[in-house]
Amino acid sequence: MKNIINIGFIGIGCRGQEVMKTMLDIDCVKVVAVCDVYQDRVEKGIEIASSYGVNASNDVKGYLDYHEILNRDDIDAVVITTSWYTHIPIAIDAMKAGKRVGLEVGGAYSIQQCWDLVKVSEETKIPCMLLENCCYGRTEMAILNMIKKDVFGEIIHCQGGYEHDLRDEISCGRENRHYRFNEYLNRNTENYPTHELGPIAKYLNINRGNRMLSLVSMSSKTKGLYPWMKQHKGNDYDALNFDFKQGDIVTTMIKCANGETILLTLDTSLPRPYSRGGRVQGVKGIWMEDNNSIYLDNISPSHKWESFDKYLEQYEHPLWKKYREEGVKSGHDGMDYLVYSAFAESVLKQIDPPIDVYDAATWMSISCLAEISIQQGSTPVDIPDFTNGKWHHREKPCNSIYQLDIVNDELF
Amino acid sequence: MKNIINIGFIGIGCRGQEVMKTMLDIDCVKVVAVCDVYQDRVEKGIEIASSYGVNASNDVKGYLDYHEILNRDDIDAVVITTSWYTHIPIAIDAMKAGKRVGLEVGGAYSIQQCWDLVKVSEETKIPCMLLENCCYGRTEMAILNMIKKDVFGEIIHCQGGYEHDLRDEISCGRENRHYRFNEYLNRNTENYPTHELGPIAKYLNINRGNRMLSLVSMSSKTKGLYPWMKQHKGNDYDALNFDFKQGDIVTTMIKCANGETILLTLDTSLPRPYSRGGRVQGVKGIWMEDNNSIYLDNISPSHKWESFDKYLEQYEHPLWKKYREEGVKSGHDGMDYLVYSAFAESVLKQIDPPIDVYDAATWMSISCLAEISIQQGSTPVDIPDFTNGKWHHREKPCNSIYQLDIVNDELF
Repeated sequence: MKNIINIGFIGIGCRGQEVMKTMLDIDCVKVVAVCDVYQDRVEKGIEIASSYGVNASNDVKGYLDYHEILNRDDIDAVVITTSWYTHIPIAIDAMKAGKRVGLEVGGAYSIQQCWDLVKVSEETKIPCMLLENCCYGRTEMAILNMIKKDVFGEIIHCQGGYEHDLRDEISCGRENRHYRFNEYLNRNTENYPTHELGPIAKYLNINRGNRMLSLVSMSSKTKGLYPWMKQHKGNDYDALNFDFKQGDIVTTMIKCANGETILLTLDTSLPRPYSRGGRVQGVKGIWMEDNNSIYLDNISPSHKWESFDKYLEQYEHPLWKKYREEGVKSGHDGMDYLVYSAFAESVLKQIDPPIDVYDAATWMSISCLAEISIQQGSTPVDIPDFTNGKWHHREKPCNSIYQLDIVNDELF
Repeated sequence: MKNIINIGFIGIGCRGQEVMKTMLDIDCVKVVAVCDVYQDRVEKGIEIASSYGVNASNDVKGYLDYHEILNRDDIDAVVITTSWYTHIPIAIDAMKAGKRVGLEVGGAYSIQQCWDLVKVSEETKIPCMLLENCCYGRTEMAILNMIKKDVFGEIIHCQGGYEHDLRDEISCGRENRHYRFNEYLNRNTENYPTHELGPIAKYLNINRGNRMLSLVSMSSKTKGLYPWMKQHKGNDYDALNFDFKQGDIVTTMIKCANGETILLTLDTSLPRPYSRGGRVQGVKGIWMEDNNSIYLDNISPSHKWESFDKYLEQYEHPLWKKYREEGVKSGHDGMDYLVYSAFAESVLKQIDPPIDVYDAATWMSISCLAEISIQQGSTPVDIPDFTNGKWHHREKPCNSIYQLDIVNDELF
């Protein structure tokens, strides 16, 4: 069995560079090829790949066309960290070329492309893993552990959000060659659902005994960017006259086959501290991220919140327990390293990844479905069953130590 | 000008008794008649009315039929604190009999009855005030003050909830003659929207320059009551076999004419500490009730929450400033006394109440509209314009010191 995997990196923008550095921290990872449409980023990628990690090497090749990476037969997998709208097309090309895919998060633009992603993976038998780092957050994994151990009882309702003041990133997107400027200019939807929906989907066994049936989305007006641009770019800034389509707050309600509801909030163009707005409610208790609190029936003092801190200790996910003992790495409080380790493990051992192509298609589809719901005046929209019924009786999850569908303490 | 108002009280259950006691604390209030369908409650009402307040008297009359109160010509106004589904019919009868109405909160059951309420008030010229105490909460009024002083800038999104663990009250409704048992058994909707929607409607100038256009509601499954009943009433409790229709979590999204969105959460049959889940977001900042926090652009430390406490001091509503100097009364941290004072003032001075019949109809209509949306699979449902266009250009609010549509510091 080999102990090194050769990775090709596609998309070397700001996030791509970060991802590559963190991934190069993993013992088995070697980046042998990097690609971007901009030459300076290609060079930056070569520089990073040849100076980070135990497998840093001087024969990293750079490309302006990702097809050249796909044509190489020494590459085991590609990591796609490009602009949102190129994620799925590149992933499809990669699988067709026999390369395993690690896909940075984002939303989809049509249901058809989600089906295509699934179909190509099924036909080629090449897995595609969505690199949803928040599934591996310390708190999210503790909550997962608590849910699987029935601490909250039957789960009724979950909430989450991507609540991140990105007014600078969006407004300065052109000069920084960042896709968010055009996304916010042209589209109005839940454009970034997976950071909160990923963990929730695993809490609720989506695609393994449960599924999301339908959603409704509503958008507020679009006002948040303008005062920011005025203050930071001046009264003459051209984009002050642009008609940005993305509503400041987009709220999405999802109904699941087993009767649970999910609430998502996109809140990225108004001033606020960062939050993923997590909330889980079962018949035995509730957890809320925003006040770091929990209430458990018959355990917490009557009608009073308790700090979540002691429960985080008590219900630390075994993976995180081990990880903390060994030393938490950088990258969004350590969760990035875990999700890339999960991907690397699946490539190295040739096993199914813990976040598979059905998860990727289902979670990403929320963006195009929310867009439809909003433009139709908040009508309910069906969420396709990308498993085509396999969710009723899927085989048990792979034995990855990074698995998210069950919590197997014995693996550690 | 008279300085005493004669009130008839209709509905002397648990809440009715509380309301009466608080109201009798107001100098001008005299309760001369009480009514309930149960004789023991009538007697309790007589006992309270003859022993509380400066106008306690020994000639309080008791009735089993509220029409007898409406027939008396010495009565200036009635307060209706009956079961939810009798609120509007009694209010209509009262206005037809020339009695001003103070209506305890609850939701409506049909759009038609909301129109009837408005029409009768318009035809008789008798005002009907919804006694929404939460509009007078100390925090809510400080937020109102901040919004009217433009601290949050243009408002984009508001949230609120009625998040109150009522499993005991619902489950024991039969033995306590409480309507919630039957409501939860028969109906699935946002059954109690006004505690959070009332303040939000005033923040957003609903019915005075703005209006709510449409809503969508979604309900979770119904599971929360059963474990509670099992634990507290035993395995043989008959209601364990009842099919309660009310979902544990009902989420409602509302779109306003001026582009704002409102999110409501009903969460009353799962374990949790109490919250009204307030949140206000404008282009300049955000306030959140659940972590008692605020973030103001260019004022708060970058990307960090501040405690709301100092802003509560700084932006204390002038009414609350005065109230605190004079001594805050009992009843939900003092807000009850204020809403009843607003009602008493409107009756005494024969002026329009700060929460009028259009507000009552609009806010209460959410319950029947959410019911329709849920049973139709979360379709969007129109919210009628109960002002029939008057919201475009309504005259400025009355000069009540309890007014909620503007903050007039000069009144104090």
